[in-house]
Amino acid sequence: MFAFTYKKTGHAQARLGNLVTPHGQVNTPAFIFCATKAAMKGLTVDHMRQAGTQIILSNTYHLLLQPGPQVIEKMGGLQKFTGWRGPMLTDSGGFQIFSLGHGSVASEIKGKRLHHRPKTLLKITEAGARFRSYLNGQEFLLTPESSIQIQRALGADLIVVLDECTPYHVDQSYTARSMELSHRWALRSLQEFNRYAQQGRQQLYGIIQGGIYPNLRRQGCDFVNSQPFFGHAIGGSLGACKSQMQDVVALTTEHLDPKRPIHLLGIGGISDIIAGVEKGIDTFDCVHPTRLARHGGALVRPDHNPNPTREHINLRNSVYSRDDSPLEPDCPCHTCTNYSKAYLHHLLKAQELVGHTLLSLHNVQFMNRLMTAIRHALADHTFAQEKKRWATL
Amino acid sequence: MFAFTYKKTGHAQARLGNLVTPHGQVNTPAFIFCATKAAMKGLTVDHMRQAGTQIILSNTYHLLLQPGPQVIEKMGGLQKFTGWRGPMLTDSGGFQIFSLGHGSVASEIKGKRLHHRPKTLLKITEAGARFRSYLNGQEFLLTPESSIQIQRALGADLIVVLDECTPYHVDQSYTARSMELSHRWALRSLQEFNRYAQQGRQQLYGIIQGGIYPNLRRQGCDFVNSQPFFGHAIGGSLGACKSQMQDVVALTTEHLDPKRPIHLLGIGGISDIIAGVEKGIDTFDCVHPTRLARHGGALVRPDHNPNPTREHINLRNSVYSRDDSPLEPDCPCHTCTNYSKAYLHHLLKAQELVGHTLLSLHNVQFMNRLMTAIRHALADHTFAQEKKRWATL
Repeated sequence: MFAFTYKKTGHAQARLGNLVTPHGQVNTPAFIFCATKAAMKGLTVDHMRQAGTQIILSNTYHLLLQPGPQVIEKMGGLQKFTGWRGPMLTDSGGFQIFSLGHGSVASEIKGKRLHHRPKTLLKITEAGARFRSYLNGQEFLLTPESSIQIQRALGADLIVVLDECTPYHVDQSYTARSMELSHRWALRSLQEFNRYAQQGRQQLYGIIQGGIYPNLRRQGCDFVNSQPFFGHAIGGSLGACKSQMQDVVALTTEHLDPKRPIHLLGIGGISDIIAGVEKGIDTFDCVHPTRLARHGGALVRPDHNPNPTREHINLRNSVYSRDDSPLEPDCPCHTCTNYSKAYLHHLLKAQELVGHTLLSLHNVQFMNRLMTAIRHALADHTFAQEKKRWATL
Repeated sequence: MFAFTYKKTGHAQARLGNLVTPHGQVNTPAFIFCATKAAMKGLTVDHMRQAGTQIILSNTYHLLLQPGPQVIEKMGGLQKFTGWRGPMLTDSGGFQIFSLGHGSVASEIKGKRLHHRPKTLLKITEAGARFRSYLNGQEFLLTPESSIQIQRALGADLIVVLDECTPYHVDQSYTARSMELSHRWALRSLQEFNRYAQQGRQQLYGIIQGGIYPNLRRQGCDFVNSQPFFGHAIGGSLGACKSQMQDVVALTTEHLDPKRPIHLLGIGGISDIIAGVEKGIDTFDCVHPTRLARHGGALVRPDHNPNPTREHINLRNSVYSRDDSPLEPDCPCHTCTNYSKAYLHHLLKAQELVGHTLLSLHNVQFMNRLMTAIRHALADHTFAQEKKRWATL
């Protein structure tokens, strides 16, 4: 019920692929949207389908705390619970534990400054990670085995091993020790996964850590290649700037078994996706499209942006208060075919929540249009031209 | 471009009608949904269309303050601005000014206790009502003439005269003086309306005040009947309990010119609508369906309610945390065909805004199903049986 096939395209390391799951197929390169708490923020599953979405993910950490994996299992699993009957992925829960533990790992991965947040990570041991619920302070221990058990109950097609998500500001020797712990956890995850022989219903991704250190990334690749994972996900810190991120991604994909799908965790910028595709990445995920919408931002192509070096416009800007044009004149989404920038500006100023829905709708459809354009251009050997239509590179 | 036709149904005073506007027809009895700030809370115009909605209204008061009538006029009027291309009504702005001025008039109209809110109404004079913006404290004077001018700029099909919305707790002599002021304002509204001979594009409703006093309500009816209004709206206090409301509505509709459509302002309870239809009301409006949704409530028929004397269930109740059934098994809405009560409960607990969207979608479609069922039952002479399916009366 699972398969992954791909072909090289001749454009750098870019490849076109097809990922088959029990809930449907995903044409790659593809973007995986984040339905963090088993819901896309502000959007219904009809919206997601209409926007051409292939696959979404939910976060094990959030669902472990609320409503709990038992509830979702009893309700028939994530796809039945959410009404999204297509392919799904869950993460291991580790990223959020370490993110809340170390401050914001998400910022660090992208090389940004440390944010200060309440720390809920209590202790990392060989056994696993002990943390407090951000909802009610209740203590939890997440182990490689329990992460697999929770993800089994949630029932997504693609699931991920628990790893320690190494922060950016640590040195090579911490990064190495952390990676070795992640590898021991990965073996325990595989063992738990295989105990139930659930390959027919779910498949497991291994994670490559190693921070910005080429020799560690190579060791991480050797490790995952040597184990029977279905797919590989590139995790951890990717460096302090875009060029370092691209170098880390390039050297990692180069060493990974090409027969397995490669996911790049947490990256969703347009130029970052284009660069990732050129390095051989098959799938991406990020909260960016819907988070940006909640802050009043709309993804637009450079030729629709007064500042073509940016990847979005901010509809809160009063320059849009009497602008009767749509976000993008050639976008077929519900938002662009029904509403002006002036109306979206009004909704944001008036704090009407449907403003977030309409911007999210556009941003989701934008990402799907981008990925479709990438696949067509790779097939037609026009990627070098096409990519310039989507980002100032 | 405007017309109203009706026929008596033989069931009490109930009638079936057809209201023609430049933006389409409305089969009556009908419910008018409140898109207060030129947006349905949590819903797109596609949602409204899919739910079978015929007509919506926006509030002049809110739009006067934000974004301002000039902006909406420049953007082509409400229907173009909002993307809702069907029939629309705007109110005069008076209700909110007096509501914010006297505390909550909405509660008083329904005979409920006074709420305490900051008072923004500064002064009522013969000229009009002076008030402060709740957004920034800016002073405004709303006159009968300026209300018409603003509603002309907004561009809805049906517009309403400015009146003083008399509170509940005042005596007959205050109510009488207030009504006489409203009548003088109504004449000025008509004069302003006729100055632009905009009958081709808009039509004007007069309002009947008079509180709970039969002789005043009769005077109010005589007044509006004698003036060239297109339609009539019943405003002001309707008494302290349901039976008093029904008596006030009955004696008012009895005296109104039957050739004009009759609107009942601010009433949206299911049993209240059924009673109103039996008294000859053609249209209703209320924020209830979407406000209830934002508080976690879903409208359901008595046979889908553990407490059949109530008209909704509250999805926040933990009894629904593992309930895999839809809100109503026979409801064709997106919410009922895709999601369980357990999922809706989860969305509310997790503070996912799409929970409000999904409950609003159901509640809007519920109201449209109710009004369609009412019209069919009136046509088939089965209203006496049908009404029991919708409310415990």
